[in-house]
Amino acid sequence: MQREFTISTTRHQELIDITGEAIKAVRDSGIKDGFCFVYIPHATAGVILNESADPNIKTDFLNALNRAILEHANYLHDRIDNNASAHIKSAIIGSSATIPIKNGNLQLGTWQAIMFCEFDGPRSSRHIIIKVCEDK
Amino acid sequence: MQREFTISTTRHQELIDITGEAIKAVRDSGIKDGFCFVYIPHATAGVILNESADPNIKTDFLNALNRAILEHANYLHDRIDNNASAHIKSAIIGSSATIPIKNGNLQLGTWQAIMFCEFDGPRSSRHIIIKVCEDK
Amino acid sequence: MQREFTISTTRHQELIDITGEAIKAVRDSGIKDGFCFVYIPHATAGVILNESADPNIKTDFLNALNRAILEHANYLHDRIDNNASAHIKSAIIGSSATIPIKNGNLQLGTWQAIMFCEFDGPRSSRHIIIKVCEDK
Repeated sequence: MQREFTISTTRHQELIDITGEAIKAVRDSGIKDGFCFVYIPHATAGVILNESADPNIKTDFLNALNRAILEHANYLHDRIDNNASAHIKSAIIGSSATIPIKNGNLQLGTWQAIMFCEFDGPRSSRHIIIKVCEDK
Repeated sequence: MQREFTISTTRHQELIDITGEAIKAVRDSGIKDGFCFVYIPHATAGVILNESADPNIKTDFLNALNRAILEHANYLHDRIDNNASAHIKSAIIGSSATIPIKNGNLQLGTWQAIMFCEFDGPRSSRHIIIKVCEDK
Repeated sequence: MQREFTISTTRHQELIDITGEAIKAVRDSGIKDGFCFVYIPHATAGVILNESADPNIKTDFLNALNRAILEHANYLHDRIDNNASAHIKSAIIGSSATIPIKNGNLQLGTWQAIMFCEFDGPRSSRHIIIKVCEDK
């Protein structure tokens, strides 16, 4: 079972909670035991699992990442397209997250949410692919 | 085949080798070819594959990560719960690792071990989920 | 369907585009819908998905990572084997990437390529495992 959808982002960098879409995909699949695979087909975005309840964590995450990987640092790619930092962050963070499914529910911990990471927004059309797979 | 277990951690930050648990899960499953999926349902912990033989690597890894992502840096979340750095590290490191299985064995390289990453310990009850899946 | 092959690297650190090998593995498998799983059984290397079209991104990525995780910083492991930084980068970047397959094609975005990350080269023999799995 595969679900593909698009979101738009409104800031240069932001985290967007997409847990609800994954829960819906799992429910619609009818699958009780298996995996939920969330995939981002972009090279300047990513996906993480972390706390969404306190929105400050999103700000702290983006600020800390910007300190570790500077927005601008004489990157060669910035001469062509001014988004080298977004590429680097995307590569480090990763393009997918996999969550086990048990008894029809995502086995997310209490404080885990699935969050799309925009590193080069705003963008009108960011694609997200969710596959729900049943255990053999 | 799913195996869920709990470990306790004794330090604020530490790496704990859980390769033995994955080997046991694969053996108990009887599966010869497939995947071993290790999942951590926590937002202040993670899992990596790396060398466990020289314990110094664990220290070097945690120290380097603490330099890249400072323990305290006026994080907003620290006003609520003093563990923003642990959330950020967990998001960067990731909550799962997948290892292929061939002829009944994990295809770990000579220097690869599966290590639970505690970023906000000590904790008495950290959950680990291991799923072993057979190739179709 | 599993494909294992070896590459050699020529620099201390470099990114090598291996997308063609994954495309070939998917084509050879005949699988139309499923997953392509790329796994690196090494503790001083990794794999990322990112842009390969502008080779400058590879340079920017490696330079930024070297600023975040210093090549040498009195690492304890460097007294035994002078490659602690490579271990740390490998642990952060990760040992696998998973790409969905739809209608016989990898669902890579326009700017996504699969790149092997050498952090401790040059090495004459780096192993890469590609598994192609069909949806149930």
